Amino acid sequence: MRIVSLAGGIGGARFLRGLQAAAPDAELTVVVNTGDDITLYGLRICPDLDTVMYTLGGGIDEQRGWGRQDETFHAKAELEAYDVPTAWFGLGDRDLATHLVRRQMLDAGFPLSEVTRALCARWQPGAALLPMTDDQVETYVRVELDGRERAIHFQEWWVKHRAALPARAIVAVGAERSTPAPGVLDAIAAADVVVLPPSNPVVSIGTVLQVPGIAEALRAKTVVGVSPVIGGAPVRGMADACLSAIGVETNAEAVGRHYRARSDGGLLDGWLVDTADAAATVPGVEVRAVPLLMTDLPAAAAMARAALDLAGA
Amino acid sequence: MRIVSLAGGIGGARFLRGLQAAAPDAELTVVVNTGDDITLYGLRICPDLDTVMYTLGGGIDEQRGWGRQDETFHAKAELEAYDVPTAWFGLGDRDLATHLVRRQMLDAGFPLSEVTRALCARWQPGAALLPMTDDQVETYVRVELDGRERAIHFQEWWVKHRAALPARAIVAVGAERSTPAPGVLDAIAAADVVVLPPSNPVVSIGTVLQVPGIAEALRAKTVVGVSPVIGGAPVRGMADACLSAIGVETNAEAVGRHYRARSDGGLLDGWLVDTADAAATVPGVEVRAVPLLMTDLPAAAAMARAALDLAGA
Repeated sequence: MRIVSLAGGIGGARFLRGLQAAAPDAELTVVVNTGDDITLYGLRICPDLDTVMYTLGGGIDEQRGWGRQDETFHAKAELEAYDVPTAWFGLGDRDLATHLVRRQMLDAGFPLSEVTRALCARWQPGAALLPMTDDQVETYVRVELDGRERAIHFQEWWVKHRAALPARAIVAVGAERSTPAPGVLDAIAAADVVVLPPSNPVVSIGTVLQVPGIAEALRAKTVVGVSPVIGGAPVRGMADACLSAIGVETNAEAVGRHYRARSDGGLLDGWLVDTADAAATVPGVEVRAVPLLMTDLPAAAAMARAALDLAGA
Repeated sequence: MRIVSLAGGIGGARFLRGLQAAAPDAELTVVVNTGDDITLYGLRICPDLDTVMYTLGGGIDEQRGWGRQDETFHAKAELEAYDVPTAWFGLGDRDLATHLVRRQMLDAGFPLSEVTRALCARWQPGAALLPMTDDQVETYVRVELDGRERAIHFQEWWVKHRAALPARAIVAVGAERSTPAPGVLDAIAAADVVVLPPSNPVVSIGTVLQVPGIAEALRAKTVVGVSPVIGGAPVRGMADACLSAIGVETNAEAVGRHYRARSDGGLLDGWLVDTADAAATVPGVEVRAVPLLMTDLPAAAAMARAALDLAGA
């Protein structure tokens, strides 16, 4: 079985680990959001790619959900001592090596997809990880800050301001001019099923879908999605701040209706919600309710199995 | 009193600390070698500038003599795990922050001299540290490697090969087209005395002297040098491997004669050697012998005092 998944960071990565446990023989390709990417100190930092790579490759810090296990933050403490304005970014010492290798390879002329493949040669994530695009796409958030409206990088909004500044707009700059990375459209074309993990519908899945060609390719496929919202709150993270920016309520039904049925020009054939949201309906979409809390790997695997069952139904 | 010093890394930095103790009211400008600089992983690494800055600023690892105290090497260990070909370079986690700030500022368009000034705003070295030039100069070493003659970066020769490959030539690439960094010639012109610390005569002092205009400016000044060689061996490091590449014997007299007397078209008015080398003579240069081992700060201060005394003689 060939599975394609779109993914953001923590939630997506943990679900994918469940998916690998549920379907160990499946050939999995993950198309990862790169709209969160940011250049700091000359380094190209790809938080979602790295979170998926570290999670599937066994290097993730399980408590934090991002960055490397046994991590230290000595370089970050020094950046603070130098009083640089971007020292709020969580740059671990071990994690830094990934960014250094990436910089070296990008400077040598390799596209991000090739760099990712090289990094994965070490981590062996058991899946093909593809950036959604090799082009530069960066998500900016329009906020009021210091008395005037400004567009700040998504990471500044998310990490520095903890998404506490109301987002007036969220824009994936460069997305409309980008092209899917090599292998993305081929993997979708060859897929038996496409699974949307419980990643952020706006700044993760939503950004991937803005790369011209990807949403169109998905329309020929069976697509099932897993709600990132349970009982009116995001399972993890601050997805509500993103949803409200695009006028979508933070509940499983609203997110499913935002994705819309494939028969209705949207994306979904099936929509997996938590048992707390069993009453949700999405016109033209089969909605199924199962426990959605990824408390451990078996729970994530059970969710993934339910998603695959729903796709086969 | 205004003192200008040319300097390389460890030996120069420790001598300068002594010089500050010996002449606490002097206005010290240090023109630092940048021929050892190397770009790794997109970061511009300036070993000599950082060694002088950390040493005079109280951040150096005293045992190693380079890099930061309380250092960890987690990023380096990860680079090794990624199997990158340059993981031999000693890149500490705290030290990395300096390179990250430098990269950020260079990318923003600041020349290295301005970056150095900004970094020193934190370290407060008590002296003006100037790179010899803002232009890119990199020292390469011609060696036989894997059966053929190749030019490798000085750092690869020095750190990776421990200078064990015989150097057929040492070339500061770009030096002849470089110009002194802003402030260098003015500081020399204003100096009451110029002191050459016991830095490497070939790849540290020698490289600084290759920047057009610096050697000429020094010819108008009283210049005293401190021998980096005691009793036929370098005090520290592998200066003999550099000296033999330029056909100079590794002894205090030969190094003094290599610098030559100012009256003879060379550089020196005075040459400070160790008591073990009291018999050394350099035509046209006053040679004085004192203990030259910088075992601690008082010893380095005594050496610096002797150098200043010699300059006044």
